Amino acid sequence: MPETSRQIRLARRPQGEPVAADFELAHVPVPAPGNGQVLSRTVYLSLDPYMRGRMNAERSYADPVPIGGVMEAGGVGVVEASNFKGLAVGDIVVGRTGWQDYAVSDGAGLRKVDPTAGPISTAVGVLGMPGMTAYTGLLNIGQPKEGETLAVAAASGAVGSAVGQIGKIKGCRVVGVAGGPEKCRYVTAELGFDACIDHRAPDFEAQLAAACPKGIDIYFENVGGRVLEAVLPLLNFFSRMPVCGLISQYNATKLPDGPNRLPQLMRAVLTNRVLIRGFIVRDYADQQGDFLRDVGTWLREGRIKYREHRVKGLENAPATLIGLLKGENFGKVVVEVSEDPTR
Amino acid sequence: MPETSRQIRLARRPQGEPVAADFELAHVPVPAPGNGQVLSRTVYLSLDPYMRGRMNAERSYADPVPIGGVMEAGGVGVVEASNFKGLAVGDIVVGRTGWQDYAVSDGAGLRKVDPTAGPISTAVGVLGMPGMTAYTGLLNIGQPKEGETLAVAAASGAVGSAVGQIGKIKGCRVVGVAGGPEKCRYVTAELGFDACIDHRAPDFEAQLAAACPKGIDIYFENVGGRVLEAVLPLLNFFSRMPVCGLISQYNATKLPDGPNRLPQLMRAVLTNRVLIRGFIVRDYADQQGDFLRDVGTWLREGRIKYREHRVKGLENAPATLIGLLKGENFGKVVVEVSEDPTR
Repeated sequence: MPETSRQIRLARRPQGEPVAADFELAHVPVPAPGNGQVLSRTVYLSLDPYMRGRMNAERSYADPVPIGGVMEAGGVGVVEASNFKGLAVGDIVVGRTGWQDYAVSDGAGLRKVDPTAGPISTAVGVLGMPGMTAYTGLLNIGQPKEGETLAVAAASGAVGSAVGQIGKIKGCRVVGVAGGPEKCRYVTAELGFDACIDHRAPDFEAQLAAACPKGIDIYFENVGGRVLEAVLPLLNFFSRMPVCGLISQYNATKLPDGPNRLPQLMRAVLTNRVLIRGFIVRDYADQQGDFLRDVGTWLREGRIKYREHRVKGLENAPATLIGLLKGENFGKVVVEVSEDPTR
Repeated sequence: MPETSRQIRLARRPQGEPVAADFELAHVPVPAPGNGQVLSRTVYLSLDPYMRGRMNAERSYADPVPIGGVMEAGGVGVVEASNFKGLAVGDIVVGRTGWQDYAVSDGAGLRKVDPTAGPISTAVGVLGMPGMTAYTGLLNIGQPKEGETLAVAAASGAVGSAVGQIGKIKGCRVVGVAGGPEKCRYVTAELGFDACIDHRAPDFEAQLAAACPKGIDIYFENVGGRVLEAVLPLLNFFSRMPVCGLISQYNATKLPDGPNRLPQLMRAVLTNRVLIRGFIVRDYADQQGDFLRDVGTWLREGRIKYREHRVKGLENAPATLIGLLKGENFGKVVVEVSEDPTR
């Protein structure tokens, strides 16, 4: 084991789109775990859109990362030292380990990963936070019914790809929205969505309407902006909108120019009796057992597929997050921080 | 009984704010009821904000009134002739009787009113559609809990006044929003709200924030516009927003100028896990028994009060609706069409 650990910290709060200088790389001694704590070596680091919000000073559903603090992340690691009786050296764990080579965590905050259930990187992907976000948001708020139309924003991403495939399992017509023809082809050909519309197309709104001839019963919101505005006129009576993310507006420094479309949304809500509900995955923490059982089964049966966008090296995490916020990734973003002991 | 009945019909679709010429007065023979039908003489006609939507060509949750069609309304009437075995001449009934002196209705579509339960005009007020809208929207979507803060738009109106008083019964801190100091005084002094803020005040936003020191857990939406925008920054984690009406935007012919506040609302929804849900009273038709029992009891006990804005004469209904849409009424708007046989 080396004597130093690298950390990527928040150097300053971004103005709009983050840049490299908003992050700083530090070298610190590898810490020792205290009572009930575990030292883990990070193997895979998850990068996700919500991280942009943590870089701002405003509290959202979680406290901001302080200036000089280690960037937050979920990670998959291997236990290097343990003072927690439920975990032993060599165990694979997943938890909030942060952007760093080595993390000390309370053992109770880590979950042991079963390496026979699939590649361990899925513990931050389809069998982890993004998969559970998809599962709980769609089932609890979206409440899909056979024959309904489900529209999914960011359809090739970690959450969207799972939402759509679970929607297919539940008998919905599933229409994805993604950025560019390559992602759209993947979403229909590989993931089995009924259609996928490129939001960069000049006639995106018309294409989306044509793909939803019976309107939209569930819109799983990951992006906001133009996609949301195109969905509004298509919402059916008693439609549901789980609001999971708004990636298109995370880098915004001010409200967009007019017209003010707030009244348009409210009119759609009123006349169609729409349900809109924001959520985060930990609101449904008690459903983790159901999630792991169901999605684990579907994964083994080949009914759910996933795609990883892999990047090697902790030092590349900042540039990768910057790209993620621009939609440059293709699939779940995983940073390979150190050697995977299961491969 | 006279031989002719007056009707107020939709002459043309309004452009923006309705004007007198959008309506026309017609005289028709008093119709005869067919099999299963009832002829009623309108005593009280209810005027409500939703009527503006029915004057537009676009379908909302109900079909538009056709050009030349009788304006729709709920009314309280007395049975003049009956071919429906559940109703007899002299019975007081409430139903969708329209803007006319005499209406023929399917007997099954009318509800018999108990004149001992209170003044019969309440069958289109606190014991009718507006009261049931308040009751079902607040209890089903708002889900008030003791100690929570409930903000109510259009607080002196037919729906808002009931929402706030039910909220007090449920143990909430209730903050109303109304137009002008006289209405605000009534809302606090007579209805017992904890505070009421005048949305015409230049510092309305600051006053509302000061009246909600613990934020807003439930916002009962009747108006949209500036009031909604002032509420957004105050919404608490897991707050609920029943969307009942949007009176401030019903006369709009285009979207307001920017900035576009749709992203602001969506951000509030996401970070605070807000629930927004549109509804209309008939979505909860099966709760009518509970409503009549509970609100009837509270009314008898003096725990719920109401105020009527009375106007004499069917011919004055158009001008009264035009005024209602500008907030010129003070309380539930009731048009006295003919003599009340119970007074």
